[in-house]
Amino acid sequence: MAIRALVWGENVHEQENAIVREIYPDGMHACIAGALAEDGGITAATATLQEPEHGLSEARLAQADVLLWWGHAAHGDVADEIVTRVQARVWQGMGLIVLHSGHFSKIFRRLMGTPCSLTWREAGERERLWVINPAHPIVEGIGPMIELPNAEMYGEPFAVPEPMETVFVSWYEGGEVFRSGLTWQRGGGRIFYFQPGHEVYPIYHNTQVRQVLRNAVKWAHNPQKWADPDAAPNRPIDAALEPLVEKGPRLHADGEEGLR
Amino acid sequence: MAIRALVWGENVHEQENAIVREIYPDGMHACIAGALAEDGGITAATATLQEPEHGLSEARLAQADVLLWWGHAAHGDVADEIVTRVQARVWQGMGLIVLHSGHFSKIFRRLMGTPCSLTWREAGERERLWVINPAHPIVEGIGPMIELPNAEMYGEPFAVPEPMETVFVSWYEGGEVFRSGLTWQRGGGRIFYFQPGHEVYPIYHNTQVRQVLRNAVKWAHNPQKWADPDAAPNRPIDAALEPLVEKGPRLHADGEEGLR
Amino acid sequence: MAIRALVWGENVHEQENAIVREIYPDGMHACIAGALAEDGGITAATATLQEPEHGLSEARLAQADVLLWWGHAAHGDVADEIVTRVQARVWQGMGLIVLHSGHFSKIFRRLMGTPCSLTWREAGERERLWVINPAHPIVEGIGPMIELPNAEMYGEPFAVPEPMETVFVSWYEGGEVFRSGLTWQRGGGRIFYFQPGHEVYPIYHNTQVRQVLRNAVKWAHNPQKWADPDAAPNRPIDAALEPLVEKGPRLHADGEEGLR
Amino acid sequence: MAIRALVWGENVHEQENAIVREIYPDGMHACIAGALAEDGGITAATATLQEPEHGLSEARLAQADVLLWWGHAAHGDVADEIVTRVQARVWQGMGLIVLHSGHFSKIFRRLMGTPCSLTWREAGERERLWVINPAHPIVEGIGPMIELPNAEMYGEPFAVPEPMETVFVSWYEGGEVFRSGLTWQRGGGRIFYFQPGHEVYPIYHNTQVRQVLRNAVKWAHNPQKWADPDAAPNRPIDAALEPLVEKGPRLHADGEEGLR
Repeated sequence: MAIRALVWGENVHEQENAIVREIYPDGMHACIAGALAEDGGITAATATLQEPEHGLSEARLAQADVLLWWGHAAHGDVADEIVTRVQARVWQGMGLIVLHSGHFSKIFRRLMGTPCSLTWREAGERERLWVINPAHPIVEGIGPMIELPNAEMYGEPFAVPEPMETVFVSWYEGGEVFRSGLTWQRGGGRIFYFQPGHEVYPIYHNTQVRQVLRNAVKWAHNPQKWADPDAAPNRPIDAALEPLVEKGPRLHADGEEGLR
Repeated sequence: MAIRALVWGENVHEQENAIVREIYPDGMHACIAGALAEDGGITAATATLQEPEHGLSEARLAQADVLLWWGHAAHGDVADEIVTRVQARVWQGMGLIVLHSGHFSKIFRRLMGTPCSLTWREAGERERLWVINPAHPIVEGIGPMIELPNAEMYGEPFAVPEPMETVFVSWYEGGEVFRSGLTWQRGGGRIFYFQPGHEVYPIYHNTQVRQVLRNAVKWAHNPQKWADPDAAPNRPIDAALEPLVEKGPRLHADGEEGLR
Repeated sequence: MAIRALVWGENVHEQENAIVREIYPDGMHACIAGALAEDGGITAATATLQEPEHGLSEARLAQADVLLWWGHAAHGDVADEIVTRVQARVWQGMGLIVLHSGHFSKIFRRLMGTPCSLTWREAGERERLWVINPAHPIVEGIGPMIELPNAEMYGEPFAVPEPMETVFVSWYEGGEVFRSGLTWQRGGGRIFYFQPGHEVYPIYHNTQVRQVLRNAVKWAHNPQKWADPDAAPNRPIDAALEPLVEKGPRLHADGEEGLR
Repeated sequence: MAIRALVWGENVHEQENAIVREIYPDGMHACIAGALAEDGGITAATATLQEPEHGLSEARLAQADVLLWWGHAAHGDVADEIVTRVQARVWQGMGLIVLHSGHFSKIFRRLMGTPCSLTWREAGERERLWVINPAHPIVEGIGPMIELPNAEMYGEPFAVPEPMETVFVSWYEGGEVFRSGLTWQRGGGRIFYFQPGHEVYPIYHNTQVRQVLRNAVKWAHNPQKWADPDAAPNRPIDAALEPLVEKGPRLHADGEEGLR
């Protein structure tokens, strides 16, 4: 069965900036979805900030195995309630791929628990993304590195928790480096951050970048789910696995809910 | 110079429950602070929910190298603004030790990015905390394990990110296990979660538990700080470390702030 | 295409001990291979210590996507040359599943770089393997835990590097705990250690254990390979990606091999 | 009490190459030891390949809190027995700092369990080591980066296990990147790999590099030891913590040693 990807696009620059619109006439999200759909094993839908519930209703999320997130100008306009909903889905096992300026999105900051800050420069400089582990599924077919002729520089320190795996590290013409491909696990959800994607360069038309996106969707797809990661069930004494006699005082009465 | 610990206590059960008050007549926070002060290299102050700003003003936090957190009945009463403030301090390098039911505190959930849920049973059963790495500074002087005659059971799955280190794993009389001592790093801040501390048993009077608390304060103390982990400075083209000529289009004008 | 598993069995106890022979008349390796073959997506071959090259010729390893390893009485009889060969294959991307007493095998100790020691007791006591992350592919279909009525106790400290993921933690009737399912990555190879498998109990006939073995083979299978993880190629100055002029003195002449 | 550092130098290039000798007239090890001794809290001794037991007798290692290792031309001349001895000490809690070409030393490869390979170029090119976590003790006093005017390029992929922490990532003039400061834990021992140190450039005279060496010694010093990481003690049934009755068959007789 095909992996169901959902590409979320903020869809602001495409409306407001002629350069971006020319590169992505149907929106960045549509271009990204097109890259995914080149793989017969992936179906790709899109959702945008401007749709009701930002296109991220419970019903739509229930159909998403992996969510991709591109945002920049309107992070603050994403409703907290929707962010909470997406976070809950990630905990249950939905994959999440955070792209470029999505490092400052509410959902990424919430899942990381850190500022997710970095340094930056918009000079159209050359970037090379070096592969750190040639056997990682995300770099299948990529070779030793990806060279982008024009990119926005993102520099260290990148204020994220130590990753599970470092997949790419970038070199920039102006002299900086950046951990440009990192993975984490949160509950059942696999998370991949990928640096490329500045809106004024045609980066999502790059064949290697498109390959990484497809690889990442496959990697992030976890068919095994965690039904209720937020539950904190009481295990009653009389149902204990070992014979157990109550000892000492108690705070809680029988059958009481735990405190939160 | 002594390490400055600040023990935050919710201070609700001590006021409302006679059993807890008898065990901790001056409050659990006072007992914990007393444990810390047994080490000449630590000074220990206390703060409680009921104080203005929950006792966690900017000025007080600026004097805290390591914060210890015990909460249970009133997690929801902690003001979000104060949680944000504490989180920012952790990012800068303040250590944080989260105790027992603090697993559901706002500050811990925010720093982890996960539900921090678990299973539980209040039966006064026996718990053994086994040492996983005998060379970890947090277990100095502890020996192979800590045995608590009466404890609240916390069981797996504990919905937290993979830790940096597993320091303790607990065995329970009723048949469960729990990763009862775990470490993480978030920005400059070292975080230790420690399971013991159910309020109706005299756990913070246990000498081994008190030793772990002192060890943990020393481990969590990071004299090296991260001044501005939330800053995202632009590095202008004319200040680039390598000669750089602007190429391609731009979204941002010179000197513009980045988008958030 | 089916995943090709190769089950390596030391095959000593089965020959020498009547109890083991009765439980595993065709050898433990055959029983394990049978468990794997219940999945139509896996083909399972076997190899034993007594075969030429211990059944681990270059040709056979070239046909193995995932190797399972059960050894105990004859770790020292495994030729170093074969261990080196297996290790090289793991680096390139072959999965490795190390079972029970295999914790002291040469191959596991070499890949871990640590003693891989533990405490132990052979009392036929009850063991419960608790699932740590219900969304991990290795626990698909397992439920909250596996209960083994009779098991050999393995206790902490287990002297291995911090794992990538903790998949199972065990509770023992006699009072100990053990991290009984752990993962690591070494080069392209995914490694899973799994505690169950003491030879005098019918553990590899347990349906949940058999399910974990199948799940683990699928998890450990990495189709993406690292062709030459041991190569240290020189990148000549005239082939540098950026224009580069040689500066300062050199130790090596042009075209010279690096030192090892 | 001062931390006792022991600087191990291969001491071959200094004897055979005039350029190296001019930069390090007393040997690289002496220069490194001099850097350490600038801190009143560190005492620094040296040992070399040419001494009996390579200067690494049991007695000398017993006096070493942290060992620094520089080798290149003669990795193969280091006796396996001595490597085993050093590895055992690391497991017990001795810190280890591996410098530059020491990535291919026997001790580092053994502790990592991976090839520790990389790409390289000797062009005297510019290197910048960017700080990844400004709050890490190893970067105290360093600022955002270290710039070396002349360095040997080491490029990714660096075939090591995922580190506990990434401390530095390097940018090279020729277009490559490298994770140039990484930490791991093996048993009780903290390990730091640090890339700078090519013998034909005066890198160990650089004040920032010298500061990192001092910081790293302090970070790697673990006063808490693991006495017997290689022991695998039997815990007899009659000494079990919980009442335990032997069930089922056994392989081992009472009081028997475990198999290895």
